[in-house]
Amino acid sequence: MYRILVLHGPNLNLLGTREPQHYGRETLAEVNARIERAAAALGVSVDCRQSNHEGQLIDWIHEARGERDGLILNPGAYTHTSYAIRDAVAAVGLPTVEVHLSNIHAREPFRHVSVIAPVALGQIAGFGPYGYVLALHALVQHLNERNGEGLR
Amino acid sequence: MYRILVLHGPNLNLLGTREPQHYGRETLAEVNARIERAAAALGVSVDCRQSNHEGQLIDWIHEARGERDGLILNPGAYTHTSYAIRDAVAAVGLPTVEVHLSNIHAREPFRHVSVIAPVALGQIAGFGPYGYVLALHALVQHLNERNGEGLR
Amino acid sequence: MYRILVLHGPNLNLLGTREPQHYGRETLAEVNARIERAAAALGVSVDCRQSNHEGQLIDWIHEARGERDGLILNPGAYTHTSYAIRDAVAAVGLPTVEVHLSNIHAREPFRHVSVIAPVALGQIAGFGPYGYVLALHALVQHLNERNGEGLR
Amino acid sequence: MYRILVLHGPNLNLLGTREPQHYGRETLAEVNARIERAAAALGVSVDCRQSNHEGQLIDWIHEARGERDGLILNPGAYTHTSYAIRDAVAAVGLPTVEVHLSNIHAREPFRHVSVIAPVALGQIAGFGPYGYVLALHALVQHLNERNGEGLR
Amino acid sequence: MYRILVLHGPNLNLLGTREPQHYGRETLAEVNARIERAAAALGVSVDCRQSNHEGQLIDWIHEARGERDGLILNPGAYTHTSYAIRDAVAAVGLPTVEVHLSNIHAREPFRHVSVIAPVALGQIAGFGPYGYVLALHALVQHLNERNGEGLR
Amino acid sequence: MYRILVLHGPNLNLLGTREPQHYGRETLAEVNARIERAAAALGVSVDCRQSNHEGQLIDWIHEARGERDGLILNPGAYTHTSYAIRDAVAAVGLPTVEVHLSNIHAREPFRHVSVIAPVALGQIAGFGPYGYVLALHALVQHLNERNGEGLR
Amino acid sequence: MYRILVLHGPNLNLLGTREPQHYGRETLAEVNARIERAAAALGVSVDCRQSNHEGQLIDWIHEARGERDGLILNPGAYTHTSYAIRDAVAAVGLPTVEVHLSNIHAREPFRHVSVIAPVALGQIAGFGPYGYVLALHALVQHLNERNGEGLR
Amino acid sequence: MYRILVLHGPNLNLLGTREPQHYGRETLAEVNARIERAAAALGVSVDCRQSNHEGQLIDWIHEARGERDGLILNPGAYTHTSYAIRDAVAAVGLPTVEVHLSNIHAREPFRHVSVIAPVALGQIAGFGPYGYVLALHALVQHLNERNGEGLR
Amino acid sequence: MYRILVLHGPNLNLLGTREPQHYGRETLAEVNARIERAAAALGVSVDCRQSNHEGQLIDWIHEARGERDGLILNPGAYTHTSYAIRDAVAAVGLPTVEVHLSNIHAREPFRHVSVIAPVALGQIAGFGPYGYVLALHALVQHLNERNGEGLR
Amino acid sequence: MYRILVLHGPNLNLLGTREPQHYGRETLAEVNARIERAAAALGVSVDCRQSNHEGQLIDWIHEARGERDGLILNPGAYTHTSYAIRDAVAAVGLPTVEVHLSNIHAREPFRHVSVIAPVALGQIAGFGPYGYVLALHALVQHLNERNGEGLR
Amino acid sequence: MYRILVLHGPNLNLLGTREPQHYGRETLAEVNARIERAAAALGVSVDCRQSNHEGQLIDWIHEARGERDGLILNPGAYTHTSYAIRDAVAAVGLPTVEVHLSNIHAREPFRHVSVIAPVALGQIAGFGPYGYVLALHALVQHLNERNGEGLR
Amino acid sequence: MYRILVLHGPNLNLLGTREPQHYGRETLAEVNARIERAAAALGVSVDCRQSNHEGQLIDWIHEARGERDGLILNPGAYTHTSYAIRDAVAAVGLPTVEVHLSNIHAREPFRHVSVIAPVALGQIAGFGPYGYVLALHALVQHLNERNGEGLR
Repeated sequence: MYRILVLHGPNLNLLGTREPQHYGRETLAEVNARIERAAAALGVSVDCRQSNHEGQLIDWIHEARGERDGLILNPGAYTHTSYAIRDAVAAVGLPTVEVHLSNIHAREPFRHVSVIAPVALGQIAGFGPYGYVLALHALVQHLNERNGEGLR
Repeated sequence: MYRILVLHGPNLNLLGTREPQHYGRETLAEVNARIERAAAALGVSVDCRQSNHEGQLIDWIHEARGERDGLILNPGAYTHTSYAIRDAVAAVGLPTVEVHLSNIHAREPFRHVSVIAPVALGQIAGFGPYGYVLALHALVQHLNERNGEGLR
Repeated sequence: MYRILVLHGPNLNLLGTREPQHYGRETLAEVNARIERAAAALGVSVDCRQSNHEGQLIDWIHEARGERDGLILNPGAYTHTSYAIRDAVAAVGLPTVEVHLSNIHAREPFRHVSVIAPVALGQIAGFGPYGYVLALHALVQHLNERNGEGLR
Repeated sequence: MYRILVLHGPNLNLLGTREPQHYGRETLAEVNARIERAAAALGVSVDCRQSNHEGQLIDWIHEARGERDGLILNPGAYTHTSYAIRDAVAAVGLPTVEVHLSNIHAREPFRHVSVIAPVALGQIAGFGPYGYVLALHALVQHLNERNGEGLR
Repeated sequence: MYRILVLHGPNLNLLGTREPQHYGRETLAEVNARIERAAAALGVSVDCRQSNHEGQLIDWIHEARGERDGLILNPGAYTHTSYAIRDAVAAVGLPTVEVHLSNIHAREPFRHVSVIAPVALGQIAGFGPYGYVLALHALVQHLNERNGEGLR
Repeated sequence: MYRILVLHGPNLNLLGTREPQHYGRETLAEVNARIERAAAALGVSVDCRQSNHEGQLIDWIHEARGERDGLILNPGAYTHTSYAIRDAVAAVGLPTVEVHLSNIHAREPFRHVSVIAPVALGQIAGFGPYGYVLALHALVQHLNERNGEGLR
Repeated sequence: MYRILVLHGPNLNLLGTREPQHYGRETLAEVNARIERAAAALGVSVDCRQSNHEGQLIDWIHEARGERDGLILNPGAYTHTSYAIRDAVAAVGLPTVEVHLSNIHAREPFRHVSVIAPVALGQIAGFGPYGYVLALHALVQHLNERNGEGLR
Repeated sequence: MYRILVLHGPNLNLLGTREPQHYGRETLAEVNARIERAAAALGVSVDCRQSNHEGQLIDWIHEARGERDGLILNPGAYTHTSYAIRDAVAAVGLPTVEVHLSNIHAREPFRHVSVIAPVALGQIAGFGPYGYVLALHALVQHLNERNGEGLR
Repeated sequence: MYRILVLHGPNLNLLGTREPQHYGRETLAEVNARIERAAAALGVSVDCRQSNHEGQLIDWIHEARGERDGLILNPGAYTHTSYAIRDAVAAVGLPTVEVHLSNIHAREPFRHVSVIAPVALGQIAGFGPYGYVLALHALVQHLNERNGEGLR
Repeated sequence: MYRILVLHGPNLNLLGTREPQHYGRETLAEVNARIERAAAALGVSVDCRQSNHEGQLIDWIHEARGERDGLILNPGAYTHTSYAIRDAVAAVGLPTVEVHLSNIHAREPFRHVSVIAPVALGQIAGFGPYGYVLALHALVQHLNERNGEGLR
Repeated sequence: MYRILVLHGPNLNLLGTREPQHYGRETLAEVNARIERAAAALGVSVDCRQSNHEGQLIDWIHEARGERDGLILNPGAYTHTSYAIRDAVAAVGLPTVEVHLSNIHAREPFRHVSVIAPVALGQIAGFGPYGYVLALHALVQHLNERNGEGLR
Repeated sequence: MYRILVLHGPNLNLLGTREPQHYGRETLAEVNARIERAAAALGVSVDCRQSNHEGQLIDWIHEARGERDGLILNPGAYTHTSYAIRDAVAAVGLPTVEVHLSNIHAREPFRHVSVIAPVALGQIAGFGPYGYVLALHALVQHLNERNGEGLR
């Protein structure tokens, strides 16, 4: 049973109430419930957390080392500037899937660049909250493949 | 029953035999078979095609108008330069999911930019052939939501 | 009687059905008919072709050498990247008028640059299908001036 | 009967005597006469003015509001730097056709960029004085279309 | 009676003791007292806070939603990099006035760019602590205008 | 009694009739009346002028030397290119407040840069015509502080 | 006996008739004959092909896998933009010599960059048709060295 | 007897009273007197003018055609932006020496670029008012050499 | 006896366990012990702290004012983006030595730029944990020189 | 009998002992011997020299004027910065072939640019010491063609 | 009697024989003779030297300290890259006039930038060998002014 | 007993007499004496040399191969441009410590980039002549660690 940490970055606590044209109408609690249902269906455990503090996100990534099998990370606006989060992900060495609710590559140019991507497994962007479900599947698939029991 | 067109761009016919560190060991036929199994499970039809010709890819995108409900597109190296494919996608107006086998954002800088992304629904990168399965789920989810029968 | 080749580049076959805010509501067949009427009025012959294939456009430009007196070229999205079409125009040495339906200088920054312009006689952009009529006049005027029988 | 203002920017008073390889051998008076003949043939009135003063050009654009139906503007070297002329054109809201005698896109890089283009209807470049005649036709066509009596 | 939140960003707690050539000799407590006097004169309430923590500033902006009528924000050095604060301001939708003690446009180039400006009402820079008083007036003027009781 | 010169740059004569989403609905005469009322309340004299001519604005700045105590300057589109106005402001050495009706930092990128800012006291942007009132207060405050009779 | 594929890219079919100051006066047929004579002298077989179609060039590169021992490639104007041809060369893994008739590093800046070079053995530019003969020698030398029978 | 026009651009009327660390303490009248003395010594006539208006400078340059043998031009801050003055100089075809009082290449980066230099004979910068005397000598030397009576 | 604050930035708590090819195998506790031994040998006191929170690092720098004689700072990934830490160092005015374990100038381009360097005494990079010992010597040397008792 | 100068730039004296993955295992003496054998076979004379001093290389290029018929130049790292060597090559006017042992276009970006290429006949890169033999053939071919006795 | 060092940089020994369209037909010996005549007329001594070696030029600049009153420097192509020569000029502190035979600001872009200018008194470019005579006058004028005996 | 070469680059012979605000008041002889004392204390031998000639520095680096155990290099202004010195350091493979007297990262932007850093062990900047002592310690520490007898 894989243990997966899901981290939501800055401003994601406002989900469902903020700029619905970009981020949809589902609240963070509803998104987390949806992630938990998908995790249960896949037989994995998830722990979902949110912080607006870059340092807090780094602390949680550090704590995940040895305690978790993988990381799903939506770094919010820190995506574009936080070399510190990037270094944290690289340091703990957990397989990490980067998720963005909106298609960041179709928005303002500053959102096209992810400084975290070079240390992530892959990126899923543009599918709203459903992106977390896809990320969960992608991460489990990766862990299974690594363990030699690939599912297709 | 949604009808979905899957387009593989240049060099993807060599899949499985080419630079496995980036693209894996599965052949294009195997990848297509995997996509078809996933489509069958979801109750949708897929048509998978590959071409090294930019013009051919554009022709196929045009033909999809009115004939398909959505597009899954791996533009290969045309991702980074083909404004013509971008215009084709914008012109036909089909919901389009962009797929990349490798995490393009973690490779050479020229691969970080997708000129097609601004007209796509979203992007999935880095999960190898499994990315097409994720794309299929994402597209069906989108079509269901648009039709008012969202599945979570 | 001048013989003029009119080439429409990628996606222009969708004219009239695609993004009318940029390209108007006239179909390519209607545009070609309009060009032919204007040509008849001017006493010149035109041959109108369209392709989404960069290589096909280049082949046609080559074939025009010795067979045509001038070229009207709407390179579509290849305008911004195709040094190969530019080299073809330079190689055949025919007077060439570049046409764009929309005012490319008022749209996304990547559309402001034409790599083909340096080998063209001039550029007409922003007047919809009527731009081809203007181009025809401009080309005939140029050919007449070159032949010493300028019309004003 | 449309009333059209034609503005010639800096250095265009020297026309016919200046760098004929770029600008031709016709004087400004001859160019204006040619424009007037074309206007008469089209049944519209034109008023042609020239100034080397950016501020004077702006003043004239302002005065045209309510007095003219359209503007033909050759901003000369102000094309590349004058956000003030651009703002003037945007402010008065008249349909404006940008004309350049030479093909600015084929000359020095600084001439490739028009800061005025984003507020113009379209651009005609490279056809010498005949470009004004084309612009007149383009503007009348536009005004007719707007008035619902399109001529082809 | 409008309720206004005033946020001072990093290093502003050192005000009055730090680089007086840029920031003046008034302490933060004195600045806050001055803001409160001006607020009292205008008949509005203010709550002044300072933090060096980007995440804390974001949390406070979130809390202001529904509790405050407007925001006066001096983001300090986060002005130039914090897309997370920008997203927070955009998310809560409060009218926001950006204040800088020094004229940031006259200092090092990196200080000329505010990534927060695109979501703010306006910016006041270069007037030292008096800038907060101006911001208060500007914000009240804006709120009054929005409420249809403009004061001049 | 301070004597203050207020200069409005290009296109500001159209105020109230031009792009109200950016510049509001008040005419220049009304704006000047508002400035005069605020000046009267503050016990200072103002002289308000407008020109579309860069050279005229420079001439007026020169004339202000020795005749005025301060300058309020809205350089309009010359903000972004006129090193000549910048040099004029630097040359006369009057304390200068830069005003912009719209929040230039939230508009097109070319409007984010003020080449005049490095020689100004400070900048106020985004508060419409009320920005001039704020500027008047800021300038008087500055002059008082310089004269040792600071008002808070 | 090595089997070598020689690919000529866009516009090279016009050789001998096109811009002789850049490309010389020899036709493509004459160039190919020259290559064949040199190949015969070296005891290797060559197959020379030309296409203006990017996709066709990619198809031929793919077909060469297992069928050829090396590739001589003049990508014409695709040199500067075709990541798809680059990926094709990388995918088939054949030793590839890049040839340019003119010294691309001495022409327009856009011709200085080869996106294909990073996957080629080496580059020969500026020696006209004789460059292919040099390339043939370089390739045979490389193949001999790899096979342990270096010729000097 | 050569007839030489000396043009001083924007803000040079303030000479002697403005930023003496950059421009010295001599007034424009004194500078002109110095130029006239040097001209008398060389046996040439000079006409010295100053304007803050770009358009006025252009008008004067035009008038010099046929009336003057050479031009000494200090374009002030228009040096860095005025393609219109550049075009005027190129159009009249008079030998032109560019003068700057300060060493513009040692000041702010924006002052390092002269858009006028490409059409000037040469440039003299950094020698204060004495630079005009040097320019006069340089121009006379050039005119003499052109006339075949070089003085050394 | 000098009192020196040593601050370790983000991810340095993982030292010894993270990417040893860049950062070595010594843990942070071991590094701190090594610093303390070197401090004892030099007769100075040190206080070593680590945080992943940018705001915490700023708070500690502020607290050092008046309490410490110098600062040794390894800002980790904040080196490249934190103008807020830079402003904090500038504000407290303590002599500061910047330390990096790896040679940041030999790694990814984004690591070559330190936004903090302009306010530091000097920089030591590439010597692993021993860099802190060098920094301690450099700081003591500086303090001694300032106090007029330089040791060589 | 052509007289050819071969110049090896900085660090090439270490050939065979330095970074064999880039430069091969042959010493400079062996490379020179190989060049001499090839020259003998072609019936031309060569003089091979090496220096680490930019000035020395320039002196030798100057001396070659009138004494040599052509130049083979491997400028080593001076390739990317030495406008002085470029000017020397342009000044003496000898046909010059640029040689690089490694494929500089496939290495670090700074090695992609040759400031010398614009004055060279052509460039050969990536074929190790054999590149000099190719260069010799290319140069002799060029000299023969110029002399009207082309060899194919 | 001022003692002045005149340094000619790389390739200037070829003067008169090299690219006369840029550098004229006078040899270096003739240029030096001309400089000496002008020096004699001014009552100053000159010492003219030339080297192609950057290090040699630096050595000579160092030797001039205390031995010379001023420096006339034509750094040739080192103008654009040699921070070492710049540092040498700054270090010796002699008033330095930079001379260029051609108008470097009108040639290739790389020649527009002088890295030496920021430490020079001024620059004279475009007047051929006569530029040295102008430089001599400028330097003597500067030395006289500094000594309080200005000559006009 | 380690043998260490210390190389001082251009202009460092002027140490103590040149711009003391950047480089201090100690002469090069005094600096070398200080280095020798520190070397004696550490039980290693040093050989200190200075040259203004890039080629000489390269020659000395080459000679050090096999003769020295490490290199301390202050490349002066060649730091920012000399790929040739970089290649020399890489070629000889000696552990190299880069030293700068001033904090180059706090000075003009062109001094922030070291093209040599990527091949050095580490960099020490900003501590004046004492930086060489630190470098000596760093190098000895490195050599000891490599030899398995680390000293802390």
